[in-house]
Amino acid sequence: MHKQPVRTIHWLGGLDGACEMIDQTLLPGEVRMLRVTDVETMWQAIKRLSVRGAPAIGIAAAYGVVLGIRDSESVEDLLVDLKETTDYLATSRPTAVNLFWALERMSAVAQANAGLPLEELKLRLLAEAEAVREEDAAMCRAIGRHGQSLIAPGNGVLTHCNAGGLATAEYGTALAPMFAAHAAGVPFRVFADETRPLLQGARLTTWELMQAGIDTTLITDSMAGFVMSQGKVDLVITGADRIAANGDAANKIGTYSVAQLARVHNIPFYVAAPSSTFDLSLANGSAIPIEERGAEEVTEGFGRRTAPAGVKVYAPAFDVTPHELIAAIITERGLVQPVNEHTVRAVIEG
Amino acid sequence: MHKQPVRTIHWLGGLDGACEMIDQTLLPGEVRMLRVTDVETMWQAIKRLSVRGAPAIGIAAAYGVVLGIRDSESVEDLLVDLKETTDYLATSRPTAVNLFWALERMSAVAQANAGLPLEELKLRLLAEAEAVREEDAAMCRAIGRHGQSLIAPGNGVLTHCNAGGLATAEYGTALAPMFAAHAAGVPFRVFADETRPLLQGARLTTWELMQAGIDTTLITDSMAGFVMSQGKVDLVITGADRIAANGDAANKIGTYSVAQLARVHNIPFYVAAPSSTFDLSLANGSAIPIEERGAEEVTEGFGRRTAPAGVKVYAPAFDVTPHELIAAIITERGLVQPVNEHTVRAVIEG
Repeated sequence: MHKQPVRTIHWLGGLDGACEMIDQTLLPGEVRMLRVTDVETMWQAIKRLSVRGAPAIGIAAAYGVVLGIRDSESVEDLLVDLKETTDYLATSRPTAVNLFWALERMSAVAQANAGLPLEELKLRLLAEAEAVREEDAAMCRAIGRHGQSLIAPGNGVLTHCNAGGLATAEYGTALAPMFAAHAAGVPFRVFADETRPLLQGARLTTWELMQAGIDTTLITDSMAGFVMSQGKVDLVITGADRIAANGDAANKIGTYSVAQLARVHNIPFYVAAPSSTFDLSLANGSAIPIEERGAEEVTEGFGRRTAPAGVKVYAPAFDVTPHELIAAIITERGLVQPVNEHTVRAVIEG
Repeated sequence: MHKQPVRTIHWLGGLDGACEMIDQTLLPGEVRMLRVTDVETMWQAIKRLSVRGAPAIGIAAAYGVVLGIRDSESVEDLLVDLKETTDYLATSRPTAVNLFWALERMSAVAQANAGLPLEELKLRLLAEAEAVREEDAAMCRAIGRHGQSLIAPGNGVLTHCNAGGLATAEYGTALAPMFAAHAAGVPFRVFADETRPLLQGARLTTWELMQAGIDTTLITDSMAGFVMSQGKVDLVITGADRIAANGDAANKIGTYSVAQLARVHNIPFYVAAPSSTFDLSLANGSAIPIEERGAEEVTEGFGRRTAPAGVKVYAPAFDVTPHELIAAIITERGLVQPVNEHTVRAVIEG
């Protein structure tokens, strides 16, 4: 019953080991672990979204660097191989910020430790890759620790989209308090919005929660208000993609509706996100740009066309929930509560 | 630009004519008119949902009776053929109330006019079938007339699900005020919720509105709140499946959320429905039973599975919007406004 959440990506064994990851392209139909032992396969895994989510991509890149240098025959060769590997991996998903961040971090560690004997340097780089993973896992666990007491025995928790372990090393952000409460033996149930258009809730959130043995019920986004009116929801926890200095939070489209419906039903609405999600240069949410997605995600989201040819579609990818609707923001540094510029800066700037 | 809404089902020609209907199983991918000239084909059309929606099914049944008696060679034969036809058509969709209502109405007219000469009796029955259609069309047009002034030039109108002409002879209920305003030259735009799980909004509402030349934008259900927050929606009009004596209205799941979100944004929320939708034996909405649908409509809505095997699903088909959230109910007898038991009884029992 208290199974651990799935490990999205990790390293097996020593320098001659392998990176193992869940092939997310097959979820939820099939759970297949992908064992990656060479740089080319890692490039493919990142490129074709076997691994996705900013933190998880950073971890994959760090392990990829280890795969690229573990057979180097001298420190000099290693530095050349490392340069080749990072240049190559950087082309896998050129817009992923965490990819570059991880590659630069590995390069800097190699440069700083180039005086070490060859094998020690290789082990140092493996340790650094493991640190990238561990720091992410620790951040998620800290969010879980700070958020778990918000979930009381018997509660119903509603979540929207997927801010779970599949985007991180494990645990995730919005799901972290749920995994932590579950591990602590607290009984509760989760309602997962399917999250149109791309169905991350139906495909990923339900799968992760079920893997951990958490009581999970899938609903369409349109059912959230009715389920709240029936008294089945005691709190809402979602993730965030970007949070302004005053606490206004951008997240997957539909989050704003959920927050308003929670307010109408006197249900606390929480956002869980690492401190790196805050952009204190933005005074409020109106400065957050809203990306528009392609019409086909709405009109052919399920594989075949379900709307007339030529229909106009409006498909914002995100919406912004004003800070007044957020009961608290759960970060790895603690809760921002109540949510306003003063409390945000106190927690995030420390 | 001011095209008429599509005729869902009508009769072409005289007694040797045919019933023509839109084959709704092919929408929105293909618009094919089905010409029905015999009772077996009509039975199939009703059975396999080429024609759907309570009023439209009643009309189809009435035309089906005409097809079953037009070749009778004596009044005596006609009454036998009529009995065979109605018994047979009654097996096409045994739970459709309007089907039985229409078959009984046609039988009663035949009995009452059995003294007429054969050809006159046949023409009387064709006229009765046409009356079934005309009365429905007139009811929809009256709803349109009473509702059209609610739509002002430049307005944005949001609707949920499909309460359009495809379920009726033409015009429909929730869409009737839009068709009427459009015919009157009022410029406005419509946001159509796709309406998960069965996507009636994406498949049918957008198609009907586009056929009439109305500016229509498809959104996912989760976008409605955000679109309202952007100031793009001036009023909401939905249909209803059943309305209690105090005005509480059951409609497609998600309608309640739309009504709450409209209230939060100070947007009037209207329900359009014929007087036959009111069930004055129910004091309020809590007495309306909520049907639950199968999980597969959520987990494999459009051909392929999009959620883990074995996931729990909660799938209520309807929700109930309390009368306090409804600015007015638009009926063929006029507006119920404000909405409470007194005003409901005044208009409906009138």
